[in-house]
Amino acid sequence: MIYFDNSATTKPFPEALKSFQQVSERYYANPSSIHSFGSETEKLLLQSKKQAAQLLNVNQEEIIFTSGGTEGNNLAIKGIALQHQNRGKHIITTTIEHPSVLEACRSLESLGFEVTYLPVDEEGRLRVEEVKNAIRNDTILLSVMHVNNELGTVQPIEEIGRIASHYPKMFFHVDHVQGLGKLPLDFHSSHIDLCTMSSHKIHGLKGAGMLFVKRNTSLFPLLHGGSQEASYRAGTENLAGIVAMVKALRMILDKQQSQYRHLENLNKQLRDCLKDLPQVMINSPEDSAPHILNFSVPGYKPEVVIHALGEKGIYISTKSACSSKNADESAVLSACGHQFKRSSSALRVSLSYDSTKEEAKTFCEAFKDVMNQLSEVMG
Amino acid sequence: MIYFDNSATTKPFPEALKSFQQVSERYYANPSSIHSFGSETEKLLLQSKKQAAQLLNVNQEEIIFTSGGTEGNNLAIKGIALQHQNRGKHIITTTIEHPSVLEACRSLESLGFEVTYLPVDEEGRLRVEEVKNAIRNDTILLSVMHVNNELGTVQPIEEIGRIASHYPKMFFHVDHVQGLGKLPLDFHSSHIDLCTMSSHKIHGLKGAGMLFVKRNTSLFPLLHGGSQEASYRAGTENLAGIVAMVKALRMILDKQQSQYRHLENLNKQLRDCLKDLPQVMINSPEDSAPHILNFSVPGYKPEVVIHALGEKGIYISTKSACSSKNADESAVLSACGHQFKRSSSALRVSLSYDSTKEEAKTFCEAFKDVMNQLSEVMG
Ligand SMILES: Cc1ncc(COP(=O)(O)O)c(C=O)c1O
Ligand SMILES: Cc1ncc(COP(=O)(O)O)c(C=O)c1O
Repeated sequence: MIYFDNSATTKPFPEALKSFQQVSERYYANPSSIHSFGSETEKLLLQSKKQAAQLLNVNQEEIIFTSGGTEGNNLAIKGIALQHQNRGKHIITTTIEHPSVLEACRSLESLGFEVTYLPVDEEGRLRVEEVKNAIRNDTILLSVMHVNNELGTVQPIEEIGRIASHYPKMFFHVDHVQGLGKLPLDFHSSHIDLCTMSSHKIHGLKGAGMLFVKRNTSLFPLLHGGSQEASYRAGTENLAGIVAMVKALRMILDKQQSQYRHLENLNKQLRDCLKDLPQVMINSPEDSAPHILNFSVPGYKPEVVIHALGEKGIYISTKSACSSKNADESAVLSACGHQFKRSSSALRVSLSYDSTKEEAKTFCEAFKDVMNQLSEVMG
Repeated sequence: MIYFDNSATTKPFPEALKSFQQVSERYYANPSSIHSFGSETEKLLLQSKKQAAQLLNVNQEEIIFTSGGTEGNNLAIKGIALQHQNRGKHIITTTIEHPSVLEACRSLESLGFEVTYLPVDEEGRLRVEEVKNAIRNDTILLSVMHVNNELGTVQPIEEIGRIASHYPKMFFHVDHVQGLGKLPLDFHSSHIDLCTMSSHKIHGLKGAGMLFVKRNTSLFPLLHGGSQEASYRAGTENLAGIVAMVKALRMILDKQQSQYRHLENLNKQLRDCLKDLPQVMINSPEDSAPHILNFSVPGYKPEVVIHALGEKGIYISTKSACSSKNADESAVLSACGHQFKRSSSALRVSLSYDSTKEEAKTFCEAFKDVMNQLSEVMG
């Protein structure tokens, strides 16, 4: 099997899964229980938080453990909106955010908020000027993703953060789900107030995530109840999932240090192979994140190509997994200004640090075979 | 170790943990991915949902997978309130609900809703008449727990449901987190619209739960985004946690059938031992759920007793784990009308089907020892 759908989700690191199992077996007590068994699990929880904070170069109290990226984005966006609506009810985001950002924003529109969806250029890049021009007196939140999940396009977060820092009434949220472990991002120097991360995209387990919340930022919680996570997020903690996530975080940041070039090389290898094919149009910009390569094959239905590759044991995707079952067209490519033929025939290869040159080569050959097969059928 | 804190959380069944591991290793693809690996995981997801529905005697589309009990309660309460606020903004609940219900209601008060908190009698039981009298023209939600987490008191859900059924504009939500696997509850015949369950209270893993949502009930989601869980709850599914939860559900319902009497006997054994002690006042009613026994030792600080028992490897708790770190007093016992001396000295023993007679006996002796030790110190 060649698994090239790592932006949809990743295979858990065996080490992370092992941590999960050990914690579940040995440290199953509730961290809120006051007996010594509970204190032990609480200690492990605090230790995990401390480690996560160190790895991300933030303060311990700035990490909120969540159930995943979708929760992180919803908590950040609705949490700021509902808590600070007396300051203003205007939100700015972009047209190519993940559905968990876009739909959270739309839900707020139904509650009386106003949202500006900023356009992007042909490669999915936001112009910093546009951000500046969109900010109003009643803007309370700016939400921009770091790495786009379909294209890999990298937004100029640091520059945007510099602008945001001039508007102290406005919070700056970054969806870092696709960027974590691939591209560095300094939350503090980028003036980020809230930053979403997800465990299952970095070879941790599903059901866990983190939201960075800058000190002294108040949020309206999605989950009210006990005082877990400093009352930002009530509910018995998924300690095993948390420990496994922090393990995965440490491992992927190590790989980011040592194997970034490897990912770049694989991306280039794939790009070189694909760009020679006459039917293929590459959608990802040259300077995109190295794990994502998006391309269109106008005239070919993505599900047919995916199915044919699947028969060879190769798994790639079209659009983002979360929205793959809706209409045919990629909303992201459409927002980039591409025509329907191109935006409805997009394929996405997404790599992990464990992907190999041989896999990339096998993929290339298989893809050419599939193109030949299909053009015969179609011809 | 004698673990008598099963209402705070349970030790995962080894079978559930094994399922978790297998699914994480083999079925890690995203169920939303359209390749065949994704379809396999989607099939497993649907199969799990079907099994859960069969076990709970409901329809497949009526089960929403969540991250736990706190999320289920918040989704039910805020989801109904925000979605149906045009019908009215009045909510009814009780004074002894779990913090995830009480705080969710309080948060809605801050958004302009009005909440009636019904009183309970000395044993924590709601009078059905009170429910009837509290219903108004603008009441959109009634939320009552099945089994109280501190006392084990069982509410007359069927009777309350009968009343609720006369008010089609009002939704009826039940927090069944402590009841599941202990006491039967027929959602349909009890006229329940929404019912919360949590995995880690039935020997599943933390990070998963279920919300029953009766067909054709619309909710304002907490988590907007992809179309997972019929758009009631976006976010990549925690499939391993779900499969493990359904496994645990099947196992605990079997035990409920075959070992209910065993739990009752243990409860009686403990009750008989404790009621002979002059310092002890039993708080749980005679007909409470069999896994919970709550009692007070006025004049003794619960944390001191818990600590002394902990030194002997016996783990029990005071109040609910979620609120144990706040003030000293149990809000539940205080709502039952008990005086501070009693409500601030409560201890809770909570059993599992795997608890044994020998453990109960050892606990009893250890508890007497501790009482003697402490009264010497105090005397
Ligand atoms: C950019 C981006 N944001 C948010 C999410 C949502 O994360 P999760 O799947 O953990 O809910 C995803 C993944 O689908 C993503 O790619
Ligand atoms: C009655 C009741 N409701 C809700 C919850 C919350 O469930 P969870 O711990 O899964 O968030 C609990 C457990 O603490 C409970 O006992």
